[in-house]
Amino acid sequence: MIKHAKQILNQPFNLRLTRVLIRALIVGLFTGLLVGIFRWIIDHTMQLLTVIYPQMMKQPLLLIPYIIFLIVIALLIAKVMGPYSDQLTGSGVPQIEAVFLNENRMPAWQIVWRKFIGGLLAICPGLMLGREGPCIEMGAMIGQGLGKDFFKTNQEDLRLLQECGVAAGLSAAFSAPLAGVFFLVEEITFDFKPISVVTALIASFASDLVTLFFFGTKPCLYFPIKTYLPLKYYWILPVLGIILGLLAYLYQYCLLSLKPFFHKITIIPNKYHSLIPLLLIIPVGLWNPRLLGGSHDLIIDLFQKKLTLPRISSAALFLLPLLVFAVRFIFSMLSYGATVPGGIFMPILVLGSALGVTVAQILVQLNLISPNFYPHLLVIAMAAYFGAIEKAPITAIILLTEMVGSVQQVLPIVITTCVSYYVLDFLGGKPIYEALRLQMNYPGDK
Amino acid sequence: MIKHAKQILNQPFNLRLTRVLIRALIVGLFTGLLVGIFRWIIDHTMQLLTVIYPQMMKQPLLLIPYIIFLIVIALLIAKVMGPYSDQLTGSGVPQIEAVFLNENRMPAWQIVWRKFIGGLLAICPGLMLGREGPCIEMGAMIGQGLGKDFFKTNQEDLRLLQECGVAAGLSAAFSAPLAGVFFLVEEITFDFKPISVVTALIASFASDLVTLFFFGTKPCLYFPIKTYLPLKYYWILPVLGIILGLLAYLYQYCLLSLKPFFHKITIIPNKYHSLIPLLLIIPVGLWNPRLLGGSHDLIIDLFQKKLTLPRISSAALFLLPLLVFAVRFIFSMLSYGATVPGGIFMPILVLGSALGVTVAQILVQLNLISPNFYPHLLVIAMAAYFGAIEKAPITAIILLTEMVGSVQQVLPIVITTCVSYYVLDFLGGKPIYEALRLQMNYPGDK
Repeated sequence: MIKHAKQILNQPFNLRLTRVLIRALIVGLFTGLLVGIFRWIIDHTMQLLTVIYPQMMKQPLLLIPYIIFLIVIALLIAKVMGPYSDQLTGSGVPQIEAVFLNENRMPAWQIVWRKFIGGLLAICPGLMLGREGPCIEMGAMIGQGLGKDFFKTNQEDLRLLQECGVAAGLSAAFSAPLAGVFFLVEEITFDFKPISVVTALIASFASDLVTLFFFGTKPCLYFPIKTYLPLKYYWILPVLGIILGLLAYLYQYCLLSLKPFFHKITIIPNKYHSLIPLLLIIPVGLWNPRLLGGSHDLIIDLFQKKLTLPRISSAALFLLPLLVFAVRFIFSMLSYGATVPGGIFMPILVLGSALGVTVAQILVQLNLISPNFYPHLLVIAMAAYFGAIEKAPITAIILLTEMVGSVQQVLPIVITTCVSYYVLDFLGGKPIYEALRLQMNYPGDK
Repeated sequence: MIKHAKQILNQPFNLRLTRVLIRALIVGLFTGLLVGIFRWIIDHTMQLLTVIYPQMMKQPLLLIPYIIFLIVIALLIAKVMGPYSDQLTGSGVPQIEAVFLNENRMPAWQIVWRKFIGGLLAICPGLMLGREGPCIEMGAMIGQGLGKDFFKTNQEDLRLLQECGVAAGLSAAFSAPLAGVFFLVEEITFDFKPISVVTALIASFASDLVTLFFFGTKPCLYFPIKTYLPLKYYWILPVLGIILGLLAYLYQYCLLSLKPFFHKITIIPNKYHSLIPLLLIIPVGLWNPRLLGGSHDLIIDLFQKKLTLPRISSAALFLLPLLVFAVRFIFSMLSYGATVPGGIFMPILVLGSALGVTVAQILVQLNLISPNFYPHLLVIAMAAYFGAIEKAPITAIILLTEMVGSVQQVLPIVITTCVSYYVLDFLGGKPIYEALRLQMNYPGDK
């Protein structure tokens, strides 16, 4: 007996989706608002640094009050983290993963305000930490808090709203809504149930819309590239992919070694460890304050070839981005290893862009590529380095495609990202957030 | 005790990914080759129809040998389907879904050759069937066949290769590789395990690369739109979404009613039912042969406003696309309802584009929108109609973005698709492939 349409289709006028979508929209709007304010404050205080540091360079005595100021900041960070230090350290994404695995629970509003203030205290003085992780953690907690306290949802819908918060958080952090959705499915939930995806999509776009009021329609990183990479240069891609894959493994290995290393430092109590990177970063700021922070400006500078170093021969031009890479690699590690609330997402993109520029400079010097394709390699390397370290190739492809604004770069991005992903996997690398979660020793993890 | 990096990361030099990726690449290349030939034959015979039909229009006596020819085709289709009629009818996607649910098994190579020949026999005479479904089914079976007979894989890897075939099949059918991957996760597997995604990505791009040799770098549907839809027109989007959602439900309801209807026709034995649409379609071909088939050309015509109808007043211009919609709606149903190997993917996109054009024409007539934004509404409506009927919003967004080539249309596409998805869900609609699978009464389905 063949079933009729009525026997197959669902009953009409079911209100569950309506209810969930409205709630997703509200979670998206709130997350967008909070993240918008967070980003706005960071952007503006980061500009302050480019005024303060040159002043200190001129009048080194000013360093004394500044160091005292940083000590106060370190004390404040410890105070704000309070009893929730484990939940707030780092990006927050591993902790959220653990929540989704039912290995961890967080008090929503406590986390939101503490991550907000703590994140600002850590990122604004120029530590090389990302704001994306904190935005994701705050988003998830906004979803949880609204779900539990206002909507009084059941457990299933609560999970959906936490998911919406994750997507909305990343979406607003980057003004890249599709990337928010893909980050959620590729890093956190690993599944693609239609209702999850649709609610995440709604929350993500709602949150993105709110940030438009703060920052306009231009994406926070915008790389308008209008030309294709010619096929004759495609041999570069696997080479670049191998280099990035090797360095992605180095990144994972070093980052995972940092926590045990910091734990051995007992002169300063654990909760005041943020003081170490806060003080060590001062020389970098004195050298060039634009190297500090997340740092969006630095990538834009690299993209526009604005970064210059005096007294450097043209043959050694590639040394500059390599130096940027080295400095930021070390300080990303130090910043993250200490007990500080800040992420690694953006810092990884910065490292990728510096590597892309290094390789491009070398190839240009050797006359192997035209300087016109310098921006292409920067964007490709960003995607591939991120895609390998986070083992999230789709998020990488979608994020960079949203930033570039056209699909022309998809093929070279896919090739390079797959190669670097493969190299990392071959060496034994894991998705970095999963690895960091495993380091936290949640009960359910072996 | 904090774990060290070595305790967290995997053992290096694991060869599983290497093995799977090479196999995925091979599945992608073979699928690309077969789909390339399939597409090439269809494209060229479809052009023949635009010669044959005007000839018959001039010399109606030619209709007699043509009708005899179609009877032979109907007999051949029945012969080719042979004992595998249930596995080959329709797009093949519901059957593949059932394979993934372990409710169905297929003999790989039997299905590949029979679907190839059967699909050509059904689609080439102009039935309004898509080639994408058959490409997906053939791809999955190529993955299964190579996996079982050549690579002798274990069960887990065999599933991965079937997945690769699905992605590669759709990728090659449209020259839209990312859409292939998303169709797989959104319609078939519903999960986002990294290894599935990476292997599908490799297969999808490999398969796309092969089709480049057949058809060049231009996507099979290419809608270069260079401007944003202005915010002042955004009120149109929810209205359009509601209309498309209602008509999406109508589509589902009618399509699911067709199989029971055809089963009541007992004068012609079930296996020769293809004769009904084959004969009924003749008048349509005589009216305008470009209405026949999949039909890619028709969408391009609509996009370029090439479709014209003589003796029609300008005020009734919107009647033309509406008529196209009505004719194609009815014949898509008839073509699919009969026991014929051909899909609904592309026909749904055609219906969406006709609806978009209808609405655009009405709005232009009412001076509510500038004619410049006619192509925008076409693209938006394609995505929304498809996204609703298949309940696959992400696939719709990614597919149309790949076709448009830039991310500028993402926001209006998302808004409209979410609204139409919502309306369909509210009315009780299901993902169409799932609904068709349920109609097939597999043992595991209630």
